[in-house]
Amino acid sequence: MKTLHVDLDERSYPIFIGQGLMGQAELVKPYVKGKQVLIVTNTTVAPLYLESCEKAFAEFDVHSVVLPDGEQYKNLQTLNLVFDELIGKRFDRSCTLVALGGGVIGDMTGFAAAAFQRGVNFIQMPTTLLSQVDSSVGGKTGVNHPMGKNMIGAFHQPQCVVIDTDTLNTLEDRQLSAGLAEVIKYGLIVDEPFFEWLEEHLEKLLARDPQTLSEAIERSCQNKAKIVALDEKEAGLRALFNLGHTFGHAIEAGMGYGNWLHGEGVSAGTMQAVYLSKLMGLLSESDEVRIAKIFERAKLPIKPPSSKQMNNKQFLDLMAGDKKVQAGKIRLVLLKRIGEAYVTSDYPAALLEQTLTEWR
Amino acid sequence: MKTLHVDLDERSYPIFIGQGLMGQAELVKPYVKGKQVLIVTNTTVAPLYLESCEKAFAEFDVHSVVLPDGEQYKNLQTLNLVFDELIGKRFDRSCTLVALGGGVIGDMTGFAAAAFQRGVNFIQMPTTLLSQVDSSVGGKTGVNHPMGKNMIGAFHQPQCVVIDTDTLNTLEDRQLSAGLAEVIKYGLIVDEPFFEWLEEHLEKLLARDPQTLSEAIERSCQNKAKIVALDEKEAGLRALFNLGHTFGHAIEAGMGYGNWLHGEGVSAGTMQAVYLSKLMGLLSESDEVRIAKIFERAKLPIKPPSSKQMNNKQFLDLMAGDKKVQAGKIRLVLLKRIGEAYVTSDYPAALLEQTLTEWR
Repeated sequence: MKTLHVDLDERSYPIFIGQGLMGQAELVKPYVKGKQVLIVTNTTVAPLYLESCEKAFAEFDVHSVVLPDGEQYKNLQTLNLVFDELIGKRFDRSCTLVALGGGVIGDMTGFAAAAFQRGVNFIQMPTTLLSQVDSSVGGKTGVNHPMGKNMIGAFHQPQCVVIDTDTLNTLEDRQLSAGLAEVIKYGLIVDEPFFEWLEEHLEKLLARDPQTLSEAIERSCQNKAKIVALDEKEAGLRALFNLGHTFGHAIEAGMGYGNWLHGEGVSAGTMQAVYLSKLMGLLSESDEVRIAKIFERAKLPIKPPSSKQMNNKQFLDLMAGDKKVQAGKIRLVLLKRIGEAYVTSDYPAALLEQTLTEWR
Repeated sequence: MKTLHVDLDERSYPIFIGQGLMGQAELVKPYVKGKQVLIVTNTTVAPLYLESCEKAFAEFDVHSVVLPDGEQYKNLQTLNLVFDELIGKRFDRSCTLVALGGGVIGDMTGFAAAAFQRGVNFIQMPTTLLSQVDSSVGGKTGVNHPMGKNMIGAFHQPQCVVIDTDTLNTLEDRQLSAGLAEVIKYGLIVDEPFFEWLEEHLEKLLARDPQTLSEAIERSCQNKAKIVALDEKEAGLRALFNLGHTFGHAIEAGMGYGNWLHGEGVSAGTMQAVYLSKLMGLLSESDEVRIAKIFERAKLPIKPPSSKQMNNKQFLDLMAGDKKVQAGKIRLVLLKRIGEAYVTSDYPAALLEQTLTEWR
C-alpha cells in the first residue's frame, strides 16, 4: 500500500492506494468520528462491493443507500434521496458518509456531506479509474443543472480516500479508457516525463496490470495534490485541470448527460484545445499527432460529435454556460507544449470558430 | 447610520444600520465584485422594496427573482428557481446575489450563493426585525427538509449587511413580535442589562420608535457578532443562540411550516426551556414569571400547542430529529439566571417529560 498526503492545513487528508484495501476496518477506523455511517453507492457498484465495504465499517451503526447509476441522475432530486435517508435514520452531525462508486457517487456524496446539517465528514472509496485519479483529490463536490455541469456544489474535503485497485478488475473497458483520459491529461498539463511513461506503458494499463495501474494512479494523484495544495479553491493554477473540459462539458451536456462519458468528452475536448493551440502557433503539428495517437491507443474518441449532432452555435452556447466564463469571455486551457498548459481568455474568436468547424 | 463589524478573519464583513439605507448605491458598491447582480425576494416584499433595491444596483447588470412567501417554500424545489435564473441568465462566478426579505429569503439566498458554482458573493438586506437581529449575523444558510428545519445548508458569510430600519414600518404586527422573541433571547442568554433595557423600552419598540428599534437591533447584532467571532461553525459557545429553538423547531415542524412563525416557536420554546430550568432548581420562580411577562407584553405565545395538537411523544420525536442531537441525546440550552445560559445534555429525562406535560 502507498500513502499520499493532500496538504491543506487542517483539511489535509491521506490517500491510500493498493490492492485489497476495501474491507480493511483498521484502515478507515481512525477517520470515523461518530457512530453513524451511511454508505452511498449505486445499482452497479452495490452488488459488487457493498458487502465488502460494509465489513470495513461493521463496528459502527452502518446504513446504505443505493442510487440509480449514471450522470443523468447527478441532480438535486437524486441528492434528496440521500437526505431522506440521513434524516429518516436520524443521522446527527457526528456522522460519516462513505462514497462507494465512481465520480458521480463521489461528487454527490461529497455535496450531501457538505450540505447535511451544514457539513459532516465523508470518506471516498472510488471504484473507477477516473474517480481514483480525479475526483478523489481536491474536494470538489456537486450536482448538475440541466443547463450546465457541476453548477451546484461545494468545496468539501474528505477525511481520507481509499483506492482499492482491485475494483478496476470489474470496470468496463469503456470506463477504463475514460479514466485514462484524465491520466493522460496530467502528463499534458504539467508532467512531460509522465506523458512519456504513459506512451510506454499504455498497453500494460489497458491490460490492467496492477503495478502499472497503481503507478499511474499514484503519479496522477501526486500531480493533482501538488496543485490543489497551492490553489484549493481554484483561484488560478488549479484551472489547468480543466484542459479539454470546457469543450468536453459542452459535449456531455449537448449530447445528453450519460451518453458521452466524462472522460470521452475530455479526450475529444482536449484534442479541440490542442487543435486551437496549434492554430495559434503554440503547439507543433507533430505534438498534435502524438497527442491524438495516445488517446486513440487508449480507445478514446478524438473528435467531437458531428456538426449535425451539435453545430458550432450550440457548442459555443454550451461552452459559454460553463463555469470557466468570466466577464462574458470563455476561458480556455491551452498547451504551449506537452507538459505545459496555461489558462487564457486571450485568443482570436475566429480561431475558436475555425477549431469547431475543422476539428470534427 | 451605525456600522458594526463581524470579525471573522478574511470573511469579516460590516453591518450597516440606519434609516433610508435601501436605495443607497454608494453604500453597497464597494461590496459588488463583478457586474452581475441577482436580487432574490418574495411576493410580499417585491411590491414594497424591489424597485428601491434595484436602484442601489442600477449601475450593474441587475436581475431579480421573486419567490413565493413563507417558511413552507424554504426547500430545495424553491431554491432551484434561483439556480434556474442564475444559469438561464448566464451568471458567472464573479456575480453577487442580494437577499431582499426576511429570514427565509436570507437563508435561501445565502445557500444559493454558497452552492452556485461552489460559492459566489452575496449581500443581505433583511426587511424583518427577526432577520435583522438573527440571520444577518453568522452566515448560517440553508433550506428545510420535511422532517427537520435547516437540515440542508452551509456556512457562508455575506460581503455586507444593510439593515434599513424603515422597512420595519411595513412589517405586520405579528412579524414584529416574532422578531422581538429573538431580541429578548440575547438578553436572556448573555446580556442581563439588555434584558432590563428591553423591559423598560418594550412599549416603544411595539410603537416602532425608530431610535429605540435601531438600538435594539444594534445591541442584538453586537451580542451575536461577539459570540460568532469566537465560534464561527458552532463548535460550542454559539449553540447558546439555540435557547428555545429545539422546542421551537419541533413546534414549527409539528404544526406545519408557516403556521407558527419562527419567533413564536422560539418564544413558547424558550418558556419550555425556562420551565425545565426551574424544575432543575436552576432558575427561580420569580425569574420564570418575569420572563413570561416580557414575552406576553411582546404579544408572543408563551405556551406550546395543546397536547391534542402535539402530544409529548410527537414533541420528543421532532426534538430528537433536530440538529442539536449528539449520540442520541437531545442537547438543550438552559438558563442559570437571566443573562446566563448554558448548553447541556445532562438533565433528567423525567423532568423534560414533566415540562412537556405541565407547561401547556
